[in-house]
Amino acid sequence: MIIDSHAHVVVPPESYKYMAELVASRANPAAAPKLTDEAVRTAGQTIIDIMDKVGTDIQFLSPRPYMQMHSVKPAKVTALWTQHMNDLVYRTVQMFPTRFRAVAGLPQYRDESPENCLAELEFRVKEQGFIGCLLNPDPTEGDASPPPGLGDAFWHPLYEKLCALDIPALIHSAGSCQPRESYTLKFINEESIAIVSLMNSPVFEKFPNLKLIVPHGGGAIPYHMGRFRAWSVRKGGPSFDDQLKRLHFDTTTYDQDALELLFKVVGPDRVLFATENPGTGSAIDPKTGRAYDDLKPVIEAIPFLTDADRRNIFECNCTKLYSRFRKDA
Amino acid sequence: MIIDSHAHVVVPPESYKYMAELVASRANPAAAPKLTDEAVRTAGQTIIDIMDKVGTDIQFLSPRPYMQMHSVKPAKVTALWTQHMNDLVYRTVQMFPTRFRAVAGLPQYRDESPENCLAELEFRVKEQGFIGCLLNPDPTEGDASPPPGLGDAFWHPLYEKLCALDIPALIHSAGSCQPRESYTLKFINEESIAIVSLMNSPVFEKFPNLKLIVPHGGGAIPYHMGRFRAWSVRKGGPSFDDQLKRLHFDTTTYDQDALELLFKVVGPDRVLFATENPGTGSAIDPKTGRAYDDLKPVIEAIPFLTDADRRNIFECNCTKLYSRFRKDA
Amino acid sequence: MIIDSHAHVVVPPESYKYMAELVASRANPAAAPKLTDEAVRTAGQTIIDIMDKVGTDIQFLSPRPYMQMHSVKPAKVTALWTQHMNDLVYRTVQMFPTRFRAVAGLPQYRDESPENCLAELEFRVKEQGFIGCLLNPDPTEGDASPPPGLGDAFWHPLYEKLCALDIPALIHSAGSCQPRESYTLKFINEESIAIVSLMNSPVFEKFPNLKLIVPHGGGAIPYHMGRFRAWSVRKGGPSFDDQLKRLHFDTTTYDQDALELLFKVVGPDRVLFATENPGTGSAIDPKTGRAYDDLKPVIEAIPFLTDADRRNIFECNCTKLYSRFRKDA
Amino acid sequence: MIIDSHAHVVVPPESYKYMAELVASRANPAAAPKLTDEAVRTAGQTIIDIMDKVGTDIQFLSPRPYMQMHSVKPAKVTALWTQHMNDLVYRTVQMFPTRFRAVAGLPQYRDESPENCLAELEFRVKEQGFIGCLLNPDPTEGDASPPPGLGDAFWHPLYEKLCALDIPALIHSAGSCQPRESYTLKFINEESIAIVSLMNSPVFEKFPNLKLIVPHGGGAIPYHMGRFRAWSVRKGGPSFDDQLKRLHFDTTTYDQDALELLFKVVGPDRVLFATENPGTGSAIDPKTGRAYDDLKPVIEAIPFLTDADRRNIFECNCTKLYSRFRKDA
Amino acid sequence: MIIDSHAHVVVPPESYKYMAELVASRANPAAAPKLTDEAVRTAGQTIIDIMDKVGTDIQFLSPRPYMQMHSVKPAKVTALWTQHMNDLVYRTVQMFPTRFRAVAGLPQYRDESPENCLAELEFRVKEQGFIGCLLNPDPTEGDASPPPGLGDAFWHPLYEKLCALDIPALIHSAGSCQPRESYTLKFINEESIAIVSLMNSPVFEKFPNLKLIVPHGGGAIPYHMGRFRAWSVRKGGPSFDDQLKRLHFDTTTYDQDALELLFKVVGPDRVLFATENPGTGSAIDPKTGRAYDDLKPVIEAIPFLTDADRRNIFECNCTKLYSRFRKDA
Amino acid sequence: MIIDSHAHVVVPPESYKYMAELVASRANPAAAPKLTDEAVRTAGQTIIDIMDKVGTDIQFLSPRPYMQMHSVKPAKVTALWTQHMNDLVYRTVQMFPTRFRAVAGLPQYRDESPENCLAELEFRVKEQGFIGCLLNPDPTEGDASPPPGLGDAFWHPLYEKLCALDIPALIHSAGSCQPRESYTLKFINEESIAIVSLMNSPVFEKFPNLKLIVPHGGGAIPYHMGRFRAWSVRKGGPSFDDQLKRLHFDTTTYDQDALELLFKVVGPDRVLFATENPGTGSAIDPKTGRAYDDLKPVIEAIPFLTDADRRNIFECNCTKLYSRFRKDA
Repeated sequence: MIIDSHAHVVVPPESYKYMAELVASRANPAAAPKLTDEAVRTAGQTIIDIMDKVGTDIQFLSPRPYMQMHSVKPAKVTALWTQHMNDLVYRTVQMFPTRFRAVAGLPQYRDESPENCLAELEFRVKEQGFIGCLLNPDPTEGDASPPPGLGDAFWHPLYEKLCALDIPALIHSAGSCQPRESYTLKFINEESIAIVSLMNSPVFEKFPNLKLIVPHGGGAIPYHMGRFRAWSVRKGGPSFDDQLKRLHFDTTTYDQDALELLFKVVGPDRVLFATENPGTGSAIDPKTGRAYDDLKPVIEAIPFLTDADRRNIFECNCTKLYSRFRKDA
Repeated sequence: MIIDSHAHVVVPPESYKYMAELVASRANPAAAPKLTDEAVRTAGQTIIDIMDKVGTDIQFLSPRPYMQMHSVKPAKVTALWTQHMNDLVYRTVQMFPTRFRAVAGLPQYRDESPENCLAELEFRVKEQGFIGCLLNPDPTEGDASPPPGLGDAFWHPLYEKLCALDIPALIHSAGSCQPRESYTLKFINEESIAIVSLMNSPVFEKFPNLKLIVPHGGGAIPYHMGRFRAWSVRKGGPSFDDQLKRLHFDTTTYDQDALELLFKVVGPDRVLFATENPGTGSAIDPKTGRAYDDLKPVIEAIPFLTDADRRNIFECNCTKLYSRFRKDA
Repeated sequence: MIIDSHAHVVVPPESYKYMAELVASRANPAAAPKLTDEAVRTAGQTIIDIMDKVGTDIQFLSPRPYMQMHSVKPAKVTALWTQHMNDLVYRTVQMFPTRFRAVAGLPQYRDESPENCLAELEFRVKEQGFIGCLLNPDPTEGDASPPPGLGDAFWHPLYEKLCALDIPALIHSAGSCQPRESYTLKFINEESIAIVSLMNSPVFEKFPNLKLIVPHGGGAIPYHMGRFRAWSVRKGGPSFDDQLKRLHFDTTTYDQDALELLFKVVGPDRVLFATENPGTGSAIDPKTGRAYDDLKPVIEAIPFLTDADRRNIFECNCTKLYSRFRKDA
Repeated sequence: MIIDSHAHVVVPPESYKYMAELVASRANPAAAPKLTDEAVRTAGQTIIDIMDKVGTDIQFLSPRPYMQMHSVKPAKVTALWTQHMNDLVYRTVQMFPTRFRAVAGLPQYRDESPENCLAELEFRVKEQGFIGCLLNPDPTEGDASPPPGLGDAFWHPLYEKLCALDIPALIHSAGSCQPRESYTLKFINEESIAIVSLMNSPVFEKFPNLKLIVPHGGGAIPYHMGRFRAWSVRKGGPSFDDQLKRLHFDTTTYDQDALELLFKVVGPDRVLFATENPGTGSAIDPKTGRAYDDLKPVIEAIPFLTDADRRNIFECNCTKLYSRFRKDA
Repeated sequence: MIIDSHAHVVVPPESYKYMAELVASRANPAAAPKLTDEAVRTAGQTIIDIMDKVGTDIQFLSPRPYMQMHSVKPAKVTALWTQHMNDLVYRTVQMFPTRFRAVAGLPQYRDESPENCLAELEFRVKEQGFIGCLLNPDPTEGDASPPPGLGDAFWHPLYEKLCALDIPALIHSAGSCQPRESYTLKFINEESIAIVSLMNSPVFEKFPNLKLIVPHGGGAIPYHMGRFRAWSVRKGGPSFDDQLKRLHFDTTTYDQDALELLFKVVGPDRVLFATENPGTGSAIDPKTGRAYDDLKPVIEAIPFLTDADRRNIFECNCTKLYSRFRKDA
Repeated sequence: MIIDSHAHVVVPPESYKYMAELVASRANPAAAPKLTDEAVRTAGQTIIDIMDKVGTDIQFLSPRPYMQMHSVKPAKVTALWTQHMNDLVYRTVQMFPTRFRAVAGLPQYRDESPENCLAELEFRVKEQGFIGCLLNPDPTEGDASPPPGLGDAFWHPLYEKLCALDIPALIHSAGSCQPRESYTLKFINEESIAIVSLMNSPVFEKFPNLKLIVPHGGGAIPYHMGRFRAWSVRKGGPSFDDQLKRLHFDTTTYDQDALELLFKVVGPDRVLFATENPGTGSAIDPKTGRAYDDLKPVIEAIPFLTDADRRNIFECNCTKLYSRFRKDA
């Protein structure tokens, strides 16, 4: 089975209109659109057509990260929008139960404590069967001084809830307010910051069952192992390579050389298959004639991976980590 | 002829998506959608159907004010969105030349000088036949300390351009970032502030040909004449009633009592027929069974207006003020 | 009996000096002036002479709102000044017990919780017989981001105290730090904001006995009923006209047309006679030869009011609302 | 002749009221009071009575420094108030030409360049015969980051004007917004900062004719000569004692021991007689039964001063420095 | 015995490197240097050589104040540096137990409550025998709005701890971020502010055993007694001279005239001998050929001091105040 | 010949002390230390010993980046420190002319225009033979909103100067004030931001001769080519791989896998040999027993590089780019 563990909903036109109205009115007042079944079905089918084309059996769907508006004032904008998007995820999964699983967005807001997200998260997981969530390490979106790094106690309330619910979080920033750093690049930088902050912290001692996934091949870190290995040697303690094994990664980095480096550095047992398709990588590579995010053939072409490695990458790493995943959900 | 001098475009779904993307990506990067003729036609026809129902011959169309995002950082968001909306206005007018005229939105940005708007304005008027523009007195949208009042020299570069182009500006705020003051209420408050700032300034001495329209019945001012008359008496100089005659007003205040007060206070020769239909007033009054913004019968029912008054209100006040208006545009 | 429910003390020269010293020294140090009985008497008699001239029996006196300095740093400035002004109100009422009743100012400070006002309010009501108080919805006076609207839980501590003491609050802003919006205009705008915030909140469900008066004819709202009626229709729920009946209003709007509109919109049973005389309206209308704030003849001239209406407006609406009012206080 | 070179006007009640109104309305709107001759005369006579009692022939009058409101927003408050106070100084001097000379206040505003003061200063000196001015080294009054020190080029436009007009400036801060540092203490601290900033700068090389007076005995500096002498020795260059001779000082420090120290440190030829009477020192010393600011007998009691020293202190140092002083002004 | 109650460690080169690294890396990450015994001994011996030359028996050593970096972000910089400096003080005292006693620096940080310092202080006093501490009244170092004055409840947690430990605090500011006010001048100004804030507060009523030392001769205050005496007379209550007796002072003001004034004003029983040698005063006075901070001969030369006075100044005032001082520590 | 194109001076103890004093005193006042020849020689020899051990012939020396303090207020701190460090670089090169070449640090300051650096840069290049400079893309060091990206016109004045002097700039951030992002990680993130900003700009059209080096293997970009290739395809225009050829890179990424990826992505003709030795990578890899930054054997071990490739990497790429490099400088 091919599970694409990291994908985002396709947003129907009515939802774009709602988002525009939320921003324009700063959520004052705002009535959520009632999406028709037809609208949900059309959006869902768009994805399924792609999945069928590239050979994906199941996708884990979450809200589109760069549209989370975690920094747009006031907080009610994000709160209403997150609700709307999680509703859309839920309805899509309900409609196509054999093809999707639900991963929740969180109504994080600027530098406020993540405690404001716990009720929404619990509701989605316990009442609606969501199996994981997104986690934005910088909900200020670059518009202000960021909250402390993921290694800080600031995040403990969320980690406690993740452990209690036994769900993984996918570390994924949202928008970016600094013109010099577009959201797509901020994804990468935030992942590097997240990893280093976690590696320099006692988070995994305090939460040994915490499950965190760093997508996009782990930001810049696997490419800069020399730097951080040297750092670790000077500090003493466990090696950086060993520390890194507390985390999981995914394959959304769209290049065979990069994926080979990733597998070499963190091992095929820490990496989940993922494509974010449709998304950033959905453009045709003129060299191959295939989309950049059509990663199955890329992974199949990596010579040093064994069949067992590939099974792990395509399915087992994911189903082990997402313990709430059921084949017949 | 019935001219509705104050109306806004209906936004097609593709444009809402664009707006959502602009905000989500903070305009980094962003490709404007290519609206199909069909999309423009559908949106335009929606309005024409309403016009036909209520008996309006021509509407002056501008971007929808509360969606102007004048305070969303960075400035490029507003710049791109304004361009897109003015393009939509232009294409709608081109498609239905007997039913619409074009009024431009300006890419105002927070507390920056309005000089950044002059090129766009000139282009729209000179190259595309726009006949007026919107003017937002608080482009910070309440998110920061506002720019000086409309009586201040801060606005002179724009006034110079308005006079040079011989077009009127419709004073209309955009969104509101303060939860306690929704955009619809901020419209009213900003109009009151605009009037008082202008009345306490030498703007009309410096720009005797400046043409400014205060919509929504002039904010709170016609209802609070006693307060400002007394103020004027104490200050000396021309009476407040006389000063007010430098301005024009429109009828978008959706209540016969209010409109009667307006006509009494500023005179039927200073008021332009306007409905913003479809818009805020597009809800059915349970008492009459008609929409609140179906104002033609309301004005026709005001006993003290003469036929000449009504002609002025419905057509002549407007065509005199909008000197670039041509019947056969 | 003619009760003028909204009037402010005349400030003796010694108090102006004190205010100047408080600001100049930022209350560091500051010793309150000891006003002589003569100073208090002179100031009080000034008002009584006016009352006798216009036929007012009793005035409800409070500190002059625009001089409350709620935003001047540090908080001690406002605290000392409020105390001094409430002392002056108290002594004036003590000196002329048949002509005045006392309404307290509150030492509100910028965006701090109104809890800092409760002790002063309780003292004035319980120990000194004050029968109401002022309530400033924006104690930042425009110098910073305002506190939440009056519909927000931010204000609940004050509402609880108002209900416990069974006194009404008169919604009245103070100064204005934004040059474009003078204090006299901010009064109006703040009242509009206050009404809309309250109408969109469950405040009156939570505090069914809360008594709030919106002076100056209710800001802009009675003139913009169409706008808010349409809004209400779209939202569903009780009509805007019905909602508005939770509030009280007063007549300080100095113009017969405006007053007629007010009575039509909210009904003669919700409006209290009030003039703020001497004050903003104390200038001679060249058309009538009478002061703008000489409102008794204006109300008497409104043709559609009945005698019972007028009795309610001039006395009974007020005495019912101000339950602590005693004729022989 | 006894010249008291540093004294401030007594403010009439009407002016206090004006100041209160300016602050309350943030100068929007504000009409200056027309002071009657009687009001000016009463205030002036109050001072003359004191002068006669302590034996002062002439006082140099300036606005009361702590009431200058240089940091109250907006700038118009300070601008109007400075004008009013300079007018009062002027009229007082006109009324009592044998007893007073005029020293101007400047409309400094927060951290804005002193260029905004030049027109007012020039007008007062050239048109009205003022012979000097105040100079506030921190017009933010502690409410924000202060402008650069007096040694910085920031102040050069003012220094140029002072030299061009050949008038001295009296370095005197105004209010203080920090509760921990009352204005009276800030005077002292600002004088210390001013001296050290000037001593570490090339100001007197660039403006060899610049005349600056540090009142209140030179802040803390004469008491801390050891510290700054050592500093100077380490830096090399002229001795700190020599550098200090570029400045002038006055005697407003109300204690014989302190005055003796001052004369020893800077020499009797650099110190002007001054009392600020009436003012801070106007309280009766229980030990002597005389007011603290009755400094003539104190200076006469200093054993090491010669008759020539005393003549210089009481008159000649002052008349030399204030070159625009004429006996028969 | 000659006790120099106010002196600071000499910083070894390794510590300067550490400080540079702390700032450069903003304490992220940072490993404290392991100072060799040799490094500590060399630094300590430098001081002892000076002490022997000027005849000092014992010095009380604390961290060098201007290098405390109380405002450098983040707080960890200051925390680590304070620890390192206190360690250095401790080791120096351990190494030369007959010549030094230890006075602790506190990890104060910007405007945060001093509660963050209590654990460090308690550890140093109880576990390592420190006998006093420094207290910086403005840990923002001028980079932001300062915390409340020393008379405010903000400081009570620290005062409680000082009383509980029965140790005095030496009031001493650190660096200064405002170019116009160098740290050496800020020392003086902060001491003046501290004294006035304490004199206007009930601190000594609440903490009758609180022991505070104002170094550098008490800032500007002894030189400005007239000003504050007059102020006190006007306020009523105890005389300013009596109030001042709640404080202690030291002799670090490097000038015989100044020291004479100090002894006259506060009395020889309130002043502790202190030189800060080596430090600011360590430059040769060309007039005497001795260093400015060689204060023993200066004090011996003051004619009006008795032998008993000198004993108190050189030893007994200090040993009484520092109750944890033991001769054979 | 082996040229290590990216290395930093070893800082002598006297310079650390100076840096500590600069920060502690905020450059007020500050006297630069006079480094002895011995101090310079010792520091330089330390590096040469390392170079000899790893087989480097020549190093290009610049100030140590993380110690540049570009955000420490006031600007004078950075200005003085940069001067001191450039002096040290110059003297080291003068002392060992066969082993070092000089690369300048720039006194960039927070978000100020780089124009303040041009004089220093010109002096170092023209008068002292420096052959390149560092360029920090975020001199706020994360303490405030950063300046625009390197693609913005903000940087044009510097680019003009670089082209005029015909020198390359090495893009290298300095410290980091955000605890979650240590300086060593910020290096990487800033390089990614720099590349993407440049790739999305017309900088190389405007400055075709501009020479920019991205060290540390180009940040995260070579590892994320898929993401940016897809982006480019969607945008149209030249391929991302082609665009990247406008830049140069260096080998400071301490890992054979990473270096192989780098060479594959950008080609061996765009990469300069560099080690930053001694520096971050100077720790012993337990697997090889060699330091991580001993990169010569690593590069020699890469199988797909030809001898010509290696010559280019070790020497020719560098000497071509640094056109002011002379063998016998």
